[in-house]
Amino acid sequence: MGKHIVVIPGDGIGREVTDAAVEILKKTDEIYHLDFTYEWKDAGGTAYDKYGVPLPEETVNACRKGDGILFGAVGGDQWDHLEPSLRPEKAILGLRKSLGLYVNLRPVKIQDSMIEYSPLKPEIARGTDIMIVRELVGGIYFGKRCESEINDGVERAWDVESYSVPEVERITRFAMEAARKRHGHVTSVDKSNVLASSRLWRRTAVRVHDEEYPDIQLDHMYVDNCAQQFAIHPSFFDVVVTSNMFGDILSDEAAVLSGSIGMLPSASIGKETSLYEPIHGSAPDIAGKGIANPIATILSAAMMLRYSFNEDRAADAIEKAVNQTLEDGYRTGDIYREGMKKVDGEGMTEAILQNLH
Amino acid sequence: MGKHIVVIPGDGIGREVTDAAVEILKKTDEIYHLDFTYEWKDAGGTAYDKYGVPLPEETVNACRKGDGILFGAVGGDQWDHLEPSLRPEKAILGLRKSLGLYVNLRPVKIQDSMIEYSPLKPEIARGTDIMIVRELVGGIYFGKRCESEINDGVERAWDVESYSVPEVERITRFAMEAARKRHGHVTSVDKSNVLASSRLWRRTAVRVHDEEYPDIQLDHMYVDNCAQQFAIHPSFFDVVVTSNMFGDILSDEAAVLSGSIGMLPSASIGKETSLYEPIHGSAPDIAGKGIANPIATILSAAMMLRYSFNEDRAADAIEKAVNQTLEDGYRTGDIYREGMKKVDGEGMTEAILQNLH
Ligand SMILES: CC(C)[C@H](C(=O)O)[C@@H](O)C(=O)O
Ligand SMILES: CC(C)[C@H](C(=O)O)[C@@H](O)C(=O)O
Repeated sequence: MGKHIVVIPGDGIGREVTDAAVEILKKTDEIYHLDFTYEWKDAGGTAYDKYGVPLPEETVNACRKGDGILFGAVGGDQWDHLEPSLRPEKAILGLRKSLGLYVNLRPVKIQDSMIEYSPLKPEIARGTDIMIVRELVGGIYFGKRCESEINDGVERAWDVESYSVPEVERITRFAMEAARKRHGHVTSVDKSNVLASSRLWRRTAVRVHDEEYPDIQLDHMYVDNCAQQFAIHPSFFDVVVTSNMFGDILSDEAAVLSGSIGMLPSASIGKETSLYEPIHGSAPDIAGKGIANPIATILSAAMMLRYSFNEDRAADAIEKAVNQTLEDGYRTGDIYREGMKKVDGEGMTEAILQNLH
Repeated sequence: MGKHIVVIPGDGIGREVTDAAVEILKKTDEIYHLDFTYEWKDAGGTAYDKYGVPLPEETVNACRKGDGILFGAVGGDQWDHLEPSLRPEKAILGLRKSLGLYVNLRPVKIQDSMIEYSPLKPEIARGTDIMIVRELVGGIYFGKRCESEINDGVERAWDVESYSVPEVERITRFAMEAARKRHGHVTSVDKSNVLASSRLWRRTAVRVHDEEYPDIQLDHMYVDNCAQQFAIHPSFFDVVVTSNMFGDILSDEAAVLSGSIGMLPSASIGKETSLYEPIHGSAPDIAGKGIANPIATILSAAMMLRYSFNEDRAADAIEKAVNQTLEDGYRTGDIYREGMKKVDGEGMTEAILQNLH
């Protein structure tokens, strides 16, 4: 009962950081006898260059058969001129939709030892530990849209934001279950003072809560207010559940408030398989130089062990190794501070391997 | 050629703060001979209680005839149970639409003397001076929507985000003109890697820029990235132009980063008339206690002088008086720090009046 992992390096630094994470997975496998097998597939601009499409059928099929997907990053200036359907981002959106990855999990935790990296004052940042649960296959991302239509001589384009009751039930339940394993507090974020889809969202969240999760504390917040509270009172939050579009904005805002975007993992979870990726981009400017911080991808691999393979012990071991390495003072360039031990990507991976037991 | 000002106190602290601003306007009138007349009208929960609707026809008609509108704030728990169309917020949305207030101007400036109020570290906050130009009568706020529709047994609700070329041209021109009077830099924020309406937005902004404003530096940013840059590099921005929905979220995020939401004004500008209001809410918890900070509303009145009446000298005088008063150490409770002179709303207004020349 081994596990088959599909690795998609993608573009830019995607190769380096997934290589690092695979090294960590291999060592973890040795220690915990997990019997992993691996397979590499293309996506993004790299796939476009080889096959003329950002997401080859072959990649999707491999993902369908895999037990978990480790994804690097996609994108780069050289593909920016392509028409929307051929751009690297389409690979991500395509994988989400075709694999039914309906929830994006984005943990944002500010460790006391990392507090100086936050743009926020320490007294505000302290204690931040948020799990953002973003709906990932619905809403305005996948609604009907029109690029251009002309009425009475006026050109217009439009996109439909839309949510169904089952979609909201599913994501709400996911958030409630997550809260049960954390601090029992869910904040549902919407814009129900304006949007009909938000009103359906809110009444569905309330019903799921009242009928199935009365033990959880559920509160509601408008998206504009949430964008504010993240900056002035981030420790208020435990689990935040929201729509695809609001989740895109809020999870990126929360991420940057942690001050260490090179260290934040994410999971995109589906019924059949799930995808794990760092939240940082492909950073073409530093690609190939070996200096990229591999931690976000390594922690994404740990999330895979936890959420896809139920290997909590092994996941804990990786997370501990990362924390130990940071406490030991190892820093890649993006988080380097005077007096610390500056290492490149391989140096960081090496140090984490040493701490992995 | 006097000017007629319609004052809409609204709910909660709206009355106190508009009273304070009117006192300042009267003194400014005395000094600069502006010949103002005033008229008070109801809106929000207060209007609902009196007339059964949050925005009486009479209020709209008075606004149409006025030269400028000074608005307090609306909302309160006691009206939260009302159906959407009767809630206090409808007064704001109704005024925006019926008066054609197509741009919301939200200046966010962090004065060096106020830097300690920002949740951001001083080295990040320093130099922040952003003018957010939010489109205010289009997009998903006023598109078609459906509260509930059932297909194949599945209930769904939806809202349409939609933009036309003339709508985007108009708001882009406004942003470009604003940039000409500032630092010549416009950042247009969209989600053109996903939304068709954003792609129309971006290509229209590019065309308006290239044809009419080649002297302005125009760049483009995705909304998720902008939510990040506000928190880590706010001094990068000069003028930010964006859609109604993104503008709602981003302007509130930027506001809170300034750390002094009780001091931020706004203008909602139309072709015939314009509305000026503090960005803070109605704060029912402190209403009637006389402790609300009137500065945001006083600075909104200054914006009225500048944008509706072209009285730059008088506007400057009010802004200077406010800054002087802050430098003199006067503070209402919301911004009080040890060693400062604590005053209530009237005390603050009095001190500003003293500094107004
Ligand atoms: C690349 C883009 C389409 C994507 C999104 O908006 O979902 C990204 O921003 C993300 O959050 O994963
Ligand atoms: C009250 C609400 C409808 C309004 C909006 O979302 O526009 C408010 O948040 C604002 O920004 O003025």
